[in-house]
Amino acid sequence: MEQHSNNLKYKHLGIYTQNENVVYMHKDCHACISEGFEALTRIRISNASHSIVASLNVINSDMLLPNEIGLSDAAANKLNISQNETLNVSHLEPIESLSHVRAKIYNQKLDYNAYSQIITDIVEGDYSNIHLSAFITACAGERMDIDEISALTKAMIASGKQLNWDQEIVVDKHCIGGLPGNRTTPLVVAIVAAYGLTMPKTSSRAITSPAGTADTMEVLTNVTLSLEEIKTVVEKEGGCFVWGGTAQLSPADDVLIKIEKALDIDSEGQLIASVLSKKAAAGSTHVVIDIPVGETAKVRSTGIAQKLKSHLETVGNAVGLIVKVVITDGTQPVGRGIGPTLEAIDILKVLKNEGDAPNDLKERALFLAGELLELSGKIGKGKGTETAKEVLKSGKAYEKFLAICKAQGRFTLPVLAPHKVEIKADKSGVIKRIDNRKIAKLAKLSGAPQSKSAGILLNVHLGEKIENNQLLYTLYAESKGELNYALDYKNNHNDIITII
Amino acid sequence: MEQHSNNLKYKHLGIYTQNENVVYMHKDCHACISEGFEALTRIRISNASHSIVASLNVINSDMLLPNEIGLSDAAANKLNISQNETLNVSHLEPIESLSHVRAKIYNQKLDYNAYSQIITDIVEGDYSNIHLSAFITACAGERMDIDEISALTKAMIASGKQLNWDQEIVVDKHCIGGLPGNRTTPLVVAIVAAYGLTMPKTSSRAITSPAGTADTMEVLTNVTLSLEEIKTVVEKEGGCFVWGGTAQLSPADDVLIKIEKALDIDSEGQLIASVLSKKAAAGSTHVVIDIPVGETAKVRSTGIAQKLKSHLETVGNAVGLIVKVVITDGTQPVGRGIGPTLEAIDILKVLKNEGDAPNDLKERALFLAGELLELSGKIGKGKGTETAKEVLKSGKAYEKFLAICKAQGRFTLPVLAPHKVEIKADKSGVIKRIDNRKIAKLAKLSGAPQSKSAGILLNVHLGEKIENNQLLYTLYAESKGELNYALDYKNNHNDIITII
Repeated sequence: MEQHSNNLKYKHLGIYTQNENVVYMHKDCHACISEGFEALTRIRISNASHSIVASLNVINSDMLLPNEIGLSDAAANKLNISQNETLNVSHLEPIESLSHVRAKIYNQKLDYNAYSQIITDIVEGDYSNIHLSAFITACAGERMDIDEISALTKAMIASGKQLNWDQEIVVDKHCIGGLPGNRTTPLVVAIVAAYGLTMPKTSSRAITSPAGTADTMEVLTNVTLSLEEIKTVVEKEGGCFVWGGTAQLSPADDVLIKIEKALDIDSEGQLIASVLSKKAAAGSTHVVIDIPVGETAKVRSTGIAQKLKSHLETVGNAVGLIVKVVITDGTQPVGRGIGPTLEAIDILKVLKNEGDAPNDLKERALFLAGELLELSGKIGKGKGTETAKEVLKSGKAYEKFLAICKAQGRFTLPVLAPHKVEIKADKSGVIKRIDNRKIAKLAKLSGAPQSKSAGILLNVHLGEKIENNQLLYTLYAESKGELNYALDYKNNHNDIITII
Repeated sequence: MEQHSNNLKYKHLGIYTQNENVVYMHKDCHACISEGFEALTRIRISNASHSIVASLNVINSDMLLPNEIGLSDAAANKLNISQNETLNVSHLEPIESLSHVRAKIYNQKLDYNAYSQIITDIVEGDYSNIHLSAFITACAGERMDIDEISALTKAMIASGKQLNWDQEIVVDKHCIGGLPGNRTTPLVVAIVAAYGLTMPKTSSRAITSPAGTADTMEVLTNVTLSLEEIKTVVEKEGGCFVWGGTAQLSPADDVLIKIEKALDIDSEGQLIASVLSKKAAAGSTHVVIDIPVGETAKVRSTGIAQKLKSHLETVGNAVGLIVKVVITDGTQPVGRGIGPTLEAIDILKVLKNEGDAPNDLKERALFLAGELLELSGKIGKGKGTETAKEVLKSGKAYEKFLAICKAQGRFTLPVLAPHKVEIKADKSGVIKRIDNRKIAKLAKLSGAPQSKSAGILLNVHLGEKIENNQLLYTLYAESKGELNYALDYKNNHNDIITII
């Protein structure tokens, strides 16, 4: 190969494509011609220290000279590039692990080695979105058996960094989402850490919901911490609430979650591998997992929940975790706020023992904290919730919460969005049904979670008697366009909240 | 919605992304801010006459001003845009048919209405590559039953234009690929049309092979014809060999095939729907389908071929076609050339009855033309091949071939690629095995089909005795880079041709 002719001078273009690696080369570029590159070819780009795979866009204007090369911001960052640097381009060697993806598409069972090769190549960035989507789809719809889910989970743990703590017991919790506003995690961390357990909590951002725990906590504190910083916080305070992405724990998960978000799916196998790989990589030993069940929750029936519970416990055991799964009520949103800022406000009210704190959110957090205290063996059976209640009431949980936020770099009070509109009942009656999915969609259309202060402040819960014209909820948005877009959806769906 | 503030001035950027619609907007653009658009958001772009969906890339340099908007070439073409035109951007309305794709991912059976909505949205360009890949994967691996394949086929027929011919009998043939060099179609069209039947042949480009019939015929004539032009050619000559893409017959197929190519899969349901929808939309009534079977062909066993045969005939019947499936030998490449130009050379040799014409290619073409003549009812059982032979020998097939090429706009003689290397035997013995997949891959690495004259000229067939150092095949390429890349692959794989 004539390597010398494939060297091109980097020019900054400033094109932001999110995570996608795109390379721009002029149509008359010698490497394009001699290597036979054409648009959307995936090619390898290297500098002295790094190497990435990117999709080619061909430039036929004067934006680039034939001896110049441009990169999307994501690609430039991964190469840690400087202006005028020389880059080498070459054909992408065949991605051997794609043969395993094809085998999976054709319903074959894959072993640990196959999953390991796939996950390694995904973390390397060698898969295009088309490949990632095919892998996720081929693994969805119960097409992975329990051995395969264990193998995938192990492969995902091995693909990234792993934390180790000088503690025999390291606790964690996770909620199989689907319930808007159900932000118990920060409360549980605060209570359990205040009690004296170690709980190094890494959370994801929203996949298909209006907020993930990381999105909500980012309103109040920094959540993007390095592994070193996380270690420092946890050693000092016994707990943290950070985004799992930059911690490089199970990094494949972060790539796969973006595609699942675009598809709006969250399949059983990927879900189990995602949750348990993050927990194991974070060094947890004892994990409580909450599955809310409801007609419009992520898990719709107790039968499905029981199966998921069994699979989570089996796979958990296979990767060395003690897992307890609890099945809870998922018939309606929890708390009042839906969206990062609005949920953060709820959390602070509970921690401060304020009179108008949402009781449903508080009760759930106490129950889960209690389960975790019991699972750890530090508290006797049936006494967990009571202990958690004492810790919260004493103000120690709030103190711990503030201390962790400060250790993570800041504590910021939440601020409401500038645009809002109140939605009122068009008749009197009883709240019969609140559609979790539709209310989540409404919050997303208003801008959450990208717009932190967007979302919904819910004023009613199931079974409440209401008068005509009484306030049901308030929609918040950071831009008028988003507020109108959410209103459009609300006006076209009269079954978001059903009154009879 | 504040529509007026979402109008932006178009600026030509000259970014070629193949078929992908990309829109470029400045990070400080008022529409980005007010609508809450972020990178990779899919948004709707409209001018006075057209509307498309595109993925947003955000510009943070002076490439664009905040009130300007850029488009990838594909997107600009679809909008038929002119410089300085004003474009309107808006949120993409939710794509309702994606709920059907999710249902399919979760193993639900879809009906005609569901497939119809999916295919309509795909043709509209509303699906991203992630959505397309998920749909293809969810339908692969025998996850569609025969009713679903029929429904998908009907939906694909209805999604595009449909040709009607003033003929009771309109014949067609198709080969379920996988055999390099097996370019019988142009020969069959020439023979059958010379005999007097109507055969309006539309072909695809290569999916995962080094050449499709459209790629090969493009060496010799124009294959990108409008529906009107196709009509004119067929009415005059009784046959044509055109690319099916611009004819807008089953346009969803052209979109799906690009994704299948990236995944390197070709699943049963999509394959049947692809083949039969094209035939039905082209107005065919009687179709012969050839399935070559061999260890390294696309179809590997007679059992699989029999099942595919049964499904093709059943679905064919469901969409109103008389289908005859023949199962043929697929143990090795057919003819000598592999790659568009090299295959075109083989075709001309057969048509001109030249002494060194590849006999295997000729025999197959005569057999298939004979089957078609018999299926049409114009020739008695068992007499088809004989009749086809007479037509070929008389020179009438060659005359017809030239006449069709000229009616399509040109007849150009093929020209060999500038770079070549001869690959010789490293021992004497007998040719025991030729790996169809590996030899196809080698031809692709040399540049075929994008580089028309790239590929392989095969000098040996199974069972032949050869001497040490005897020529096995010649590799052709249009660039040295591609030649070297193919050689790298050849040097790393010693089982492309096995001598024992």
